[in-house]
Amino acid sequence: MESFSLEDIVSLCKRRGFIFPGSEIYGGLSGTWDYGPLGVSLKRNIENLWWQTFVDNQSNMYGLDSAILMNSKVWEASGHVDTFNDPLIEDVVTKKRYRLDHLLEENGINTEAMDLQQMSAQIAEHKIKSPDGNDLGNGAQFNLMFKTYAGPVEDESAVVYLRPETAQGMFVNFKNILDTFYPDLPFGIAQIGRSFRNEISPRDFVFRSRELEIMEFEYFIKSEDWEAEFNTLLEMQRKWYTEVLGLSSDHISEKEIGESERAHYSRRTLDFEYAYPMGPKEIGGFAYRTDFDLANHQKLSGKNMEYTEKGTTNSFIPHVLEPTFGLDRHVLAVLCEAYTQDEINGEKRTLLKLSPKLAPYKVAVSPLLKNKKELGEKARQVFNEIKQICPNVAWDDNGNIGKRYRRQDEIGTPYCVTIDFTTLEDDTVTLRDRDTTEQKRMPIQELTSFFAKF
Amino acid sequence: MESFSLEDIVSLCKRRGFIFPGSEIYGGLSGTWDYGPLGVSLKRNIENLWWQTFVDNQSNMYGLDSAILMNSKVWEASGHVDTFNDPLIEDVVTKKRYRLDHLLEENGINTEAMDLQQMSAQIAEHKIKSPDGNDLGNGAQFNLMFKTYAGPVEDESAVVYLRPETAQGMFVNFKNILDTFYPDLPFGIAQIGRSFRNEISPRDFVFRSRELEIMEFEYFIKSEDWEAEFNTLLEMQRKWYTEVLGLSSDHISEKEIGESERAHYSRRTLDFEYAYPMGPKEIGGFAYRTDFDLANHQKLSGKNMEYTEKGTTNSFIPHVLEPTFGLDRHVLAVLCEAYTQDEINGEKRTLLKLSPKLAPYKVAVSPLLKNKKELGEKARQVFNEIKQICPNVAWDDNGNIGKRYRRQDEIGTPYCVTIDFTTLEDDTVTLRDRDTTEQKRMPIQELTSFFAKF
Repeated sequence: MESFSLEDIVSLCKRRGFIFPGSEIYGGLSGTWDYGPLGVSLKRNIENLWWQTFVDNQSNMYGLDSAILMNSKVWEASGHVDTFNDPLIEDVVTKKRYRLDHLLEENGINTEAMDLQQMSAQIAEHKIKSPDGNDLGNGAQFNLMFKTYAGPVEDESAVVYLRPETAQGMFVNFKNILDTFYPDLPFGIAQIGRSFRNEISPRDFVFRSRELEIMEFEYFIKSEDWEAEFNTLLEMQRKWYTEVLGLSSDHISEKEIGESERAHYSRRTLDFEYAYPMGPKEIGGFAYRTDFDLANHQKLSGKNMEYTEKGTTNSFIPHVLEPTFGLDRHVLAVLCEAYTQDEINGEKRTLLKLSPKLAPYKVAVSPLLKNKKELGEKARQVFNEIKQICPNVAWDDNGNIGKRYRRQDEIGTPYCVTIDFTTLEDDTVTLRDRDTTEQKRMPIQELTSFFAKF
Repeated sequence: MESFSLEDIVSLCKRRGFIFPGSEIYGGLSGTWDYGPLGVSLKRNIENLWWQTFVDNQSNMYGLDSAILMNSKVWEASGHVDTFNDPLIEDVVTKKRYRLDHLLEENGINTEAMDLQQMSAQIAEHKIKSPDGNDLGNGAQFNLMFKTYAGPVEDESAVVYLRPETAQGMFVNFKNILDTFYPDLPFGIAQIGRSFRNEISPRDFVFRSRELEIMEFEYFIKSEDWEAEFNTLLEMQRKWYTEVLGLSSDHISEKEIGESERAHYSRRTLDFEYAYPMGPKEIGGFAYRTDFDLANHQKLSGKNMEYTEKGTTNSFIPHVLEPTFGLDRHVLAVLCEAYTQDEINGEKRTLLKLSPKLAPYKVAVSPLLKNKKELGEKARQVFNEIKQICPNVAWDDNGNIGKRYRRQDEIGTPYCVTIDFTTLEDDTVTLRDRDTTEQKRMPIQELTSFFAKF
């Protein structure tokens, strides 16, 4: 790993228009981020690549886009109302609340197998104070779902939650997909969408925020096939990170989640971790959820969630494999992977080695000098020609040519095309390569076919 | 307009997997809808077409994707905290709440210029009862923003709202765009995203729901240019509906909003209406917002929102033109536009005349008979060849060929390719046209170039 910090990435993102702090002019809103023009473009490229890979290129995947607001029964069935909690403890003087487990861990106490009572007892036993030096009250569970009310009356019957995950949208539509598309097992339902978690301490840039985008699919199988199907999808997910997204295999690791740490219903779960500047952290996961979700929805809704094998009377609740991908964490990983510092002729430079398929701009077009009318006109003409076949082309005539190259390097533009006085004579341009900084001359008429492939 | 009802569209959407009621297995959640596989595809096609038209194909547009949760100061500055209200009145017996203005209008009273007091007085004067026949209390304003709390303490300082529009995300990032991209005026910031409105009575399918997707851009101009720029953008918006999206110009109308009805800061606003089955209703809008938003944000945040013309010391707050497009309303309009009923050989059929660029599937491939192995294998081979160049191809071997044609007609697939016994002899297939139902034979080798253009 190159030696750079998360702060270097945050700074580049803000300076160059990838990602800004949310509501910044009002001092922000903790855990929210706004994607600027380059960030939107990078995020859309990753999102479209994922959809192409896991939906369009498959023959048994069904896309879905379910509502963020759902009937609260959904979250009773899924267990989120009861168990999607973080343990909190209150400073009795300031009334500020802290993560109980974090306070204990900062004091060298391993909380892994402890429940709320046990953790509270540890606070008392070790006389642990709040970060402000005050006494702490009793611990309490805090539900991480954002709660609001639908309709004009704020009573219990009107409670709705912002979804903390996209998965349940797919489970509650399982029967709708069966009834409209008659798929054979195995088949999947895929979704990309915003989710919300009321994190007590959002941190690490877009890694842990209160509003996040998830790409995932639920894959419905016969229970007896789970191991074989697990291995097939696992291989697919591995290839996604390295071969499709282009992350180095040195930076991706897999962590088997032990029985004591994984959800009680899961028979196997693993995390994919990326080597972020703050250490290896989860970029995605893959869980075998058994029939937990569909069985619970059948129980609570009274609706039949069984699948009947065609031509038979063999009915059963399918089991589920769930590969999950955090979109914002993918954006961050791709930025970290691309972030490079080198020296060109004794001058330090920062560049993003983004592949052309992910880069916000594939190419930037510039006139060598801004104030020469003939150069500007010719450059506009070349710009328009390239834009016809490659919409993500930048126009850049700010500052001198050296500064433009540095700026384009820093936002990851793979190529720069410069129109100079030679262009006016022989219709060739300078084509500069971001990574090598090599320049060569190319006839204008070859540019469109060169950029058409991106 | 063909004679069909909104109910016909709702029914087709559910039956065929375009749009399902949200949280349906739990009795639903009023005003929420889940897009199924075909709906996602149609929605994505419209969304991508919009982004291509208004962002990628423009040279002065900047994309944005801001957070749904924003600092509440944003909604103070925009006026939503104070004025984004509907007037409600309560049945004193059942405690149910009703739209005060709707009750009066149902009783033939024009409420257009009335405030809350005046409307309440009318209820008393005309002795109007609730729909259940009970007395009504006093009217009250009800804010349509969904409210929740960020962080572990539910107090006033933690209040956040789900954004009721995407526009403010662009205004609060205005300065970020200036500082990172140095654009010249005029330029625009564009965004597509989810917004939330706590409607008292969601209705008309996805037309008025609690969760909606908006596509819009804020276009920053010099105030003295507003009329010329207004006309240019108006023309662009007109072309979008007819030339790009393909809605009939007979179904699109423009409604100038009079001074008494438009926002106090707007100098001109017009609605675009589409002739939905429930009558002409807003599909989009176009407003000249003056410098209202940026000036208010400057005032409340204390941050400078001025633009300085390059090479001068001439600084001013730009004025704003805002074309807005309701994505769900676009989906509904496209479905209504395409919905057709005709008779083929004395048999009634329903079809969606979707253009190939919008249709979820461009083509469906079928073996003539399901149980003939050679036909199935050949059909799979053709399917895979087409999928290489046109990912949105359907595989359909359910039921007999007549039923498949009807099904594909109803979901708007422009072409069906059938592999029959002649195919095995001469490598030609049957290509059937959805609209004319005409069939002709085409060599397999010509299929890829035929479908490559979609």
